Amino acid sequence: MKVSEFNVKNVVDDIINKNGQIDEVYFIACGGSLIDLYSSAYFVERESTSMHSSWIPSKEFLLAPPKHFGKSSLVFICSHTGNTKETVQAAEFAKEKGAYVIAYTHNESSKCANAEFNPIIYRWEEDTPEEEKPMCLTYSILNELMHRQEADYQLYDMMKDGIAKIDSIIRAAQKKVLNRTWVFAEKYAQEPFLYIMSSGASYAQAYGFAICSLQEMQWMDCCYLNCAEYFHGPFEVTDEDHLYILMMSRGKTREIDERALTFLCKYGKKYEVIDSNEFGLDVIDDTCVDYFNAPLFYAMTVSYRTALQNKRRHPLDMRRYMGVVEY
Amino acid sequence: MKVSEFNVKNVVDDIINKNGQIDEVYFIACGGSLIDLYSSAYFVERESTSMHSSWIPSKEFLLAPPKHFGKSSLVFICSHTGNTKETVQAAEFAKEKGAYVIAYTHNESSKCANAEFNPIIYRWEEDTPEEEKPMCLTYSILNELMHRQEADYQLYDMMKDGIAKIDSIIRAAQKKVLNRTWVFAEKYAQEPFLYIMSSGASYAQAYGFAICSLQEMQWMDCCYLNCAEYFHGPFEVTDEDHLYILMMSRGKTREIDERALTFLCKYGKKYEVIDSNEFGLDVIDDTCVDYFNAPLFYAMTVSYRTALQNKRRHPLDMRRYMGVVEY
Repeated sequence: MKVSEFNVKNVVDDIINKNGQIDEVYFIACGGSLIDLYSSAYFVERESTSMHSSWIPSKEFLLAPPKHFGKSSLVFICSHTGNTKETVQAAEFAKEKGAYVIAYTHNESSKCANAEFNPIIYRWEEDTPEEEKPMCLTYSILNELMHRQEADYQLYDMMKDGIAKIDSIIRAAQKKVLNRTWVFAEKYAQEPFLYIMSSGASYAQAYGFAICSLQEMQWMDCCYLNCAEYFHGPFEVTDEDHLYILMMSRGKTREIDERALTFLCKYGKKYEVIDSNEFGLDVIDDTCVDYFNAPLFYAMTVSYRTALQNKRRHPLDMRRYMGVVEY
Repeated sequence: MKVSEFNVKNVVDDIINKNGQIDEVYFIACGGSLIDLYSSAYFVERESTSMHSSWIPSKEFLLAPPKHFGKSSLVFICSHTGNTKETVQAAEFAKEKGAYVIAYTHNESSKCANAEFNPIIYRWEEDTPEEEKPMCLTYSILNELMHRQEADYQLYDMMKDGIAKIDSIIRAAQKKVLNRTWVFAEKYAQEPFLYIMSSGASYAQAYGFAICSLQEMQWMDCCYLNCAEYFHGPFEVTDEDHLYILMMSRGKTREIDERALTFLCKYGKKYEVIDSNEFGLDVIDDTCVDYFNAPLFYAMTVSYRTALQNKRRHPLDMRRYMGVVEY
């Protein structure tokens, strides 16, 4: 269905009618689409009493599927083009095994848009509201499902409230950071290498900033780190010459990011901080604000990579291999 | 207990007597100790019908524990020094919640060696056999537990056989790679940056090679990648100037690594391949060989980092922050 027809109660009715109790939720995709699903996998893991979750690259899932996988499983698949080979195969495999599949794609004539995969065709325009994009659609479905399956689930109203509020928070944040992204690009456009750090539900945003925004779209070398692991190895490279981007989350794991900041302030010199506390996330309830850093950070990575594109004159859409050569 | 007193049947008897049916296995540690537990988390996820698994840095676990966590949970904790603050706190928290804790440590007078955490004091010497180190001890415990809990579990004898065989495979591999690690160090000791790739059950060995062996012990910049994700972003930086280390696993996910190799052969020039198929892993049964790449790769990273240490004259034990300053 097109996202304009999306009705979360109907979606969850259909899941329950067809598959009954859901015990496991799998998040299967590649690259940027997989990154989009990480915070939802973390949400299930941390908040659900009825379901377990797992976040797996499509090809790993196909070659070594989890033993639990089957009729009691809900699978979220995502492919922007809708034709990513291993993701389409993962959807087919999931369907064969009797799981309930939901496939997100931007392309209504793609293989992922097959009715068997209960596709949701999302828009991806400048004015597309967050609640119509895969990340918040997934929160919405999981929130409804946990509300139905778990008598003691307590985040139902707060999650709905967060989903409704995050779009305007992000739009304000984009305006607020514009100048600083230009200054960042001015200072660091020629940097040979950088580290990007985040933690908790937002960890995959550091991963995505690295592998999609910089490695793929700017051919820039970088590494992603979980701040919780920084002090157990990676911090030994820190000095005044190394560049860091630190994404600091609001929520239960904030202390992890603050510890990294304290260290960078003391032993580093070149670090850029993207701090959710600067961007009005406090209007979302503390019980679930953790899950709304990820969409905010994603938007911030877009702002930063756009500034880098413009300064480096390296178009974000330029590829030398993807869609260009056979591999 | 000391590892010399380890008896897997007694350990599993005690787990079942005290906690009954185990539904979830958590792997909680930091840095290198966390890396050691990844392939076991993957093993449970892929092979168990009775248990789910989760692999979480100690501090994330403490600040945002999973909702399922409790009496039905088995928790593996690991800390080489036995006093890693957040890992000790995680063990205490797990105990409070009624989970069955098993704590690995090399230090018998450490906080992790507390009898409440059912500690296993492992040796870590040149001649310590693999089956007495945390990775294989964990396989052994999980294998016994799945054998008892799951009527249809089929890997019991093959896993025991693999655990018995892996030590001699690794010792032969160490001899075989010695010269090539010297050549690698001779060519690449001054390289400013490199990518390290692996996939499947061995993915965390790429992570560990990066954050422990190179970032921590050599202050070398690098990034780790899952080969399954390489074609969905990261491969755009590949060219004849970039250095890659590719760890190719034997087992179900090998196809993922082979695809990366084919690409590196075509578009790269500087790449080092560490291929399990060269090292006699074929004597371990195909049904479970996947899980024995990780201990082999760990030994290989030690060989490579030792060669780098000697060429770069950068002692593996030199630290500027860890254990030196307050943080």
